Amino acid sequence: MTSAYERLEQKFARIAVLNEASAMLGWDAAAMMPDGGAEARGEQLATLAGLAHEFLASPEIGEDLEAAAPETDWQEANVGLMREAYIRATALPRDLVEASVRAGRACETIWRAARKESDFAAVQAALSEVVSLTRESAQILGQALDLAPYDALMSQYQRGITAADASAIFTRYEAFLKDALPRAEALQAAREHESLPPGPYPEAVQEALARQLAASAGLKFSNARLDRSAHPFCGGTPTDIRITTRYDEADFASALTGVLHETGHALYEQNLPAAFARQPVGEAAGMAMHESQSLIIEMQAVRSDAFLSHLAPILTQAFGKPITPPALKRRLRHVERSYIRVEADELTYPAHVLLRFRLEQALLSGDLAVADLPAAWNDGFKALLGITPPNDAQGCLQDIHWYDGAIGYFPSYTLGAMAAAQLMAAARKALPGLDAHLAQGDFTPLSVWLAEHVHGLGASLGFNEILTAATGEALNPAHFEAHLTARYLA
Amino acid sequence: MTSAYERLEQKFARIAVLNEASAMLGWDAAAMMPDGGAEARGEQLATLAGLAHEFLASPEIGEDLEAAAPETDWQEANVGLMREAYIRATALPRDLVEASVRAGRACETIWRAARKESDFAAVQAALSEVVSLTRESAQILGQALDLAPYDALMSQYQRGITAADASAIFTRYEAFLKDALPRAEALQAAREHESLPPGPYPEAVQEALARQLAASAGLKFSNARLDRSAHPFCGGTPTDIRITTRYDEADFASALTGVLHETGHALYEQNLPAAFARQPVGEAAGMAMHESQSLIIEMQAVRSDAFLSHLAPILTQAFGKPITPPALKRRLRHVERSYIRVEADELTYPAHVLLRFRLEQALLSGDLAVADLPAAWNDGFKALLGITPPNDAQGCLQDIHWYDGAIGYFPSYTLGAMAAAQLMAAARKALPGLDAHLAQGDFTPLSVWLAEHVHGLGASLGFNEILTAATGEALNPAHFEAHLTARYLA
Repeated sequence: MTSAYERLEQKFARIAVLNEASAMLGWDAAAMMPDGGAEARGEQLATLAGLAHEFLASPEIGEDLEAAAPETDWQEANVGLMREAYIRATALPRDLVEASVRAGRACETIWRAARKESDFAAVQAALSEVVSLTRESAQILGQALDLAPYDALMSQYQRGITAADASAIFTRYEAFLKDALPRAEALQAAREHESLPPGPYPEAVQEALARQLAASAGLKFSNARLDRSAHPFCGGTPTDIRITTRYDEADFASALTGVLHETGHALYEQNLPAAFARQPVGEAAGMAMHESQSLIIEMQAVRSDAFLSHLAPILTQAFGKPITPPALKRRLRHVERSYIRVEADELTYPAHVLLRFRLEQALLSGDLAVADLPAAWNDGFKALLGITPPNDAQGCLQDIHWYDGAIGYFPSYTLGAMAAAQLMAAARKALPGLDAHLAQGDFTPLSVWLAEHVHGLGASLGFNEILTAATGEALNPAHFEAHLTARYLA
Repeated sequence: MTSAYERLEQKFARIAVLNEASAMLGWDAAAMMPDGGAEARGEQLATLAGLAHEFLASPEIGEDLEAAAPETDWQEANVGLMREAYIRATALPRDLVEASVRAGRACETIWRAARKESDFAAVQAALSEVVSLTRESAQILGQALDLAPYDALMSQYQRGITAADASAIFTRYEAFLKDALPRAEALQAAREHESLPPGPYPEAVQEALARQLAASAGLKFSNARLDRSAHPFCGGTPTDIRITTRYDEADFASALTGVLHETGHALYEQNLPAAFARQPVGEAAGMAMHESQSLIIEMQAVRSDAFLSHLAPILTQAFGKPITPPALKRRLRHVERSYIRVEADELTYPAHVLLRFRLEQALLSGDLAVADLPAAWNDGFKALLGITPPNDAQGCLQDIHWYDGAIGYFPSYTLGAMAAAQLMAAARKALPGLDAHLAQGDFTPLSVWLAEHVHGLGASLGFNEILTAATGEALNPAHFEAHLTARYLA
């Protein structure tokens, strides 16, 4: 006789296998598929997603959840995550789900044209529809999960931290930035400016280097590939990770740091607890925690003085051009007030997120009308960074998220950056030789520590619980401030 | 209200979409996947195949098949194919299906080692089990489909031609070969022997040429990719074809003809009737017909005097070495008695198939005991080609088919080669300038003719019906004999 818990494990494993198939097909669509395959691929992905949803929302799962008697902490956490997934899959009326999908798809299409024309008015009605349907869903989900509506959205991306937690942290960062940014700019202006030699930096050399560095950071190519796509990402499955990048022969730095960013994500996936593979508790703990793992590699380790001193001669040799640590630092650690989030440096990036975090809460609650979004964006941007976007394309139209129906995602970026700093501080304390290892190009102590304190925990704990177990405290922005102070204000 | 027929179309479309996902994941496993991904991929493919089978074998499909009232010939053919698929999916007891899968898997594993050691005794028991279970299945399927047991197996690979049809054709070929082979050898020995210059033929040049030739043969790269794999194949889906090859820098010919062979398969898939996409009637008509399409490109068109005269200067220019038509012909049209089917030339290849066709029928009927297979193989081989395999690795252990449970597949290879000759003869008659076009490297008239007379018919007709509609007669080996006579006995 299988128990209710065992049946649940089997059912969720089958759902996970379908999601694995979707992940591989999604990677293929971005990295391999000829254009003509797009329509058929859309059908394949929709069918797999539909089946996964059908299996998840089945009454048998509801019954087994009632009857399940988990025997260990991990099993209990697993059942908790299963229950939440089941509620999310069943709480919303089918009409609302379908209307949301349709509205999101329609709005995204209009947004693509509107962004090109910097014409917010063109997409305003479609966005209003998306916001209104998302509000309705958030209320229903919040009630079912006993969460505030915005928290019900936020927790689908990252469990274990609330909007109230994030608000306090972001408000404190706002004050820090007000003081730190002009100081960092002044120090930067006063510094000597050594430049990287001009390109070309051949793609083949960049790719070989990227492979070598990803492997030295711990990526197992027996279970991974590195390919190209228009938008770099980390996809695939834990035993078959697919990371992508794009190359610019004028600038080696973006592909190289991009690959190491995706490598951070990949290490998390590769080191998830194999004993709970294909179970909710065996997955990563959330998007903010995932971002902390990409950023601890890319921002904390790779951009450290120690590692850059190791990297410079490797680059010099590979490209046959003199690349010095100061020139590398100038390229990789440059602070600048700018309009576009994805191009922002690590000091100003949180301001971009903070603005969106506040605005999306206001949109969801109805405190901010969609019609007033451009003005609110520009005012908020001016208040945070002292500059006003010249147009909405560089303002409230720049990101796909809201237009696609994704509200509650943005805070993950900055919570992840802050968690990365906190984890790095704890790792440095636990591993006194950490920087000496990085100066030798050796990531092993760091990645072993992360595997033990983060990756191997899967989703058995929430965001703040993992941080508390690993570092002794919940998310504390002081570590991120200390990191930025050391790097930009010293 | 949807009709029973419409519901069937929807259900079979969903099954087809799952099979498309499997096809893409199968391609990835062969062409892209790191080794470490194999176990997870196996689960993904098994889950998708299991779901597709579950949907196909559902009682609702049985009911809709009872009620369906097709309104056109194509719909009627579609329902006929659906019914056959349903019977195949439901006729066999679950225990027998599972025992067959297990036996095939076990036998294949043992066979890999046995072939390496040329040790038939090691795999004899496992093969006996496979044969005995296949016999049981063939009897049940034959009864359900009103076919002889062997025909029930053969028709799962190619409908519309029976073992009796094939027997008569193969027996006639045996007589032709007896006379033709020594004459071809004598003529070949008497001819001047101009050789291709020694390599290396750089992979990158081979690949660029392969792409160029595949495109000129009609492959649309907007809906296709060319990659590498250990065993070349044509996979993917009609709007997203994936062909693969492997390169040998010492010999450009194998990759080039291999790519054009797969291109022939790909053209068939790309030109299937879009109005019946994802329906059984919209698929290719069978494996023999598929092979006819790869061979009409590779053997009939590419190896023709006309095309080789066009190809030689292209190769000369691309590789920077003198490559003459006579040297090309010697490499691509060389006759030789040999032991290994996949390396055989087009004149002796049918003898390899004929032997297997006879032996597998005798195994299935029980007329031949598995223990007697090696001796029967060697005797049969000697009788057909006059040479005796030095060991079983080069004899009855060389092909995976039987050991994997595939009985009834082999005749497709030669039926396809013969159909290719017959179709080419009809195309030459219908298109008097065909060879002049090939001499210009122009495949368009041929591929347009094939699209109309073969590809676009999907599976609306059986093998001999398609040939009759396209050429005026059912499969007639005289065309293949005439082709070989012109090429090897002139």
